[in-house]
Amino acid sequence: MTDLPAAELVLVPGGTLLTATPEEGRALAMTLARHTIHNIQPDLDKLMEGRPVYSSDPDSLIAASHVVAVEFQTIAAANDYWRG
Amino acid sequence: MTDLPAAELVLVPGGTLLTATPEEGRALAMTLARHTIHNIQPDLDKLMEGRPVYSSDPDSLIAASHVVAVEFQTIAAANDYWRG
Amino acid sequence: MTDLPAAELVLVPGGTLLTATPEEGRALAMTLARHTIHNIQPDLDKLMEGRPVYSSDPDSLIAASHVVAVEFQTIAAANDYWRG
Amino acid sequence: MTDLPAAELVLVPGGTLLTATPEEGRALAMTLARHTIHNIQPDLDKLMEGRPVYSSDPDSLIAASHVVAVEFQTIAAANDYWRG
Amino acid sequence: MTDLPAAELVLVPGGTLLTATPEEGRALAMTLARHTIHNIQPDLDKLMEGRPVYSSDPDSLIAASHVVAVEFQTIAAANDYWRG
Amino acid sequence: MTDLPAAELVLVPGGTLLTATPEEGRALAMTLARHTIHNIQPDLDKLMEGRPVYSSDPDSLIAASHVVAVEFQTIAAANDYWRG
Repeated sequence: MTDLPAAELVLVPGGTLLTATPEEGRALAMTLARHTIHNIQPDLDKLMEGRPVYSSDPDSLIAASHVVAVEFQTIAAANDYWRG
Repeated sequence: MTDLPAAELVLVPGGTLLTATPEEGRALAMTLARHTIHNIQPDLDKLMEGRPVYSSDPDSLIAASHVVAVEFQTIAAANDYWRG
Repeated sequence: MTDLPAAELVLVPGGTLLTATPEEGRALAMTLARHTIHNIQPDLDKLMEGRPVYSSDPDSLIAASHVVAVEFQTIAAANDYWRG
Repeated sequence: MTDLPAAELVLVPGGTLLTATPEEGRALAMTLARHTIHNIQPDLDKLMEGRPVYSSDPDSLIAASHVVAVEFQTIAAANDYWRG
Repeated sequence: MTDLPAAELVLVPGGTLLTATPEEGRALAMTLARHTIHNIQPDLDKLMEGRPVYSSDPDSLIAASHVVAVEFQTIAAANDYWRG
Repeated sequence: MTDLPAAELVLVPGGTLLTATPEEGRALAMTLARHTIHNIQPDLDKLMEGRPVYSSDPDSLIAASHVVAVEFQTIAAANDYWRG
C-alpha cells in the first residue's frame, strides 16, 4: 500500500467554492470528485490499478463525467453562475 | 452478525446541516452517505465484506462519489455556499 | 403472495414534508424511498427475497443511498434546511 | 401488439403539477414516470413481459424509485412544498 | 449509413423552453432527450437497430425515463411550473 | 498515444455559461460533457476506440444524454432560462 500525499485527501482544496472563472470552477468540480474517491480509497496502488480500466471504458467515462456535472451545479450556483 | 455501534446509525450526526467551512460540509456529505448505508445494512460483517469489493472497483468508486456530490448539493445550499 | 400492510403503501406517511429536525427529515427520506418501492412491488414475499441480495451488494447499497440523497434534497428544501 | 389505452399516454394526467397534498403529489410523480415509459414503449404486451423482470429485481426497483424521487422534486417545488 | 433528417438534429426544437402547458413541457423534455441522442449518433440505421433492444428492456426504459425527468425539471422551472 | 488538440481540453470553451439562445446553451452542455471526458482521457486513440462501442449501445447513449441533461440544468439556470 502506497499512501496518497496528504494534499490529495483535502476535500475542498483552497477551502472555498468561489472561483474567478467558470474554467476554474470546472477544474474545482473535477478536483472535488477526484478527492472524494481519494478519501474512499486512499491507497495509490489501488487507484493506479483502476485507472487503465475506467479510462478506456466509455461507460465509466460517462459515469465520471456525470459526477463532475453534479459537482459543477453546486459550484456554479455558489458563484451565481459568474454572471456579474 | 456484528452490530454497528449506535453512533454509526445516527442519520445526521451533529443534528444540523450547517458547518463552519466547505471542508466540514464535504465531510458531512460523506458521513450522510455512509450512514444511510449503515441504516440499510447495520451488520458490520457484511459491510466489511463489501468494502474490498467496491473500494477497488472504479465504477463503484465513481458511483459512491456521485452520491457524495448529491449530498453536498444539499449541504452547500443549506450553508448558502459559505459565501458570507 | 403476502400483501404488505396498508400503512406501508402510504406514499408520504404523516402527510407532510415538514419535520422538526434534520434527523427526522433524513428518516422521512428513507421512508419515501422505501414506500415507492412498496407501491411498485406490494408483495412482501418478493421484497423479502430481494433484501439479502441488495443489502449485501455494495453497488446496490450505493444505488439505494443515492435515492435517499435525492429524496433528502427535496425534504431539506421544504424545511428551508432547518436553518431557523 | 396490444395498444395501451389513450389515457395511459397522456404525459401529465390532469394537466397540472399542482396537487392538494404531498400524497397526491407523490402519486403524480409515479404517474409521470410511468407515462414516460408508456410513450417510449406503447405496446402493452411488451410492458407486461417486462413487469415480472423489473419488479422482482432489487436493482431495478431502486432505479425506478430514483426516477420517482426526481419527478417528485419537480412537483414538490411546483407546490412550494405544500408549506402554506 | 442513413442520415437523420436535419430537423431531428436541432437541439431545442422551437428555440425556447417556454410552453403553454405542462403536457407540452413534458413532450419537449422527451424531444430534448431524444435529440441529444440524435446528435451523438446521427446514423438512423444504428438508432433503429438499438430501438428494439432498449424498448423491451425494463432497465433501459427506466434509465430513459430518468433522463426525461431531469430534462423536465429544467423545463418546469423555466415555466415557473405553469403556476400562473 | 495521440494527444488531443489543446482546444479540446479547455473545460469551458468561450469562458462563460451565458449563451444567446437555448440552442447554443444546449450545444454548450454537450461540449462541457465531452471536454470533461477529454480531460480524464486525453488520448485520442483511446477515445476513438471507445466511440463505436458507446455510440451503438442504447444504454450508453441514454447515459450520455443524462449527463447532457444535467449540464443543461446548470446552463439554463445561468441564463435565467432565456426568459427575458
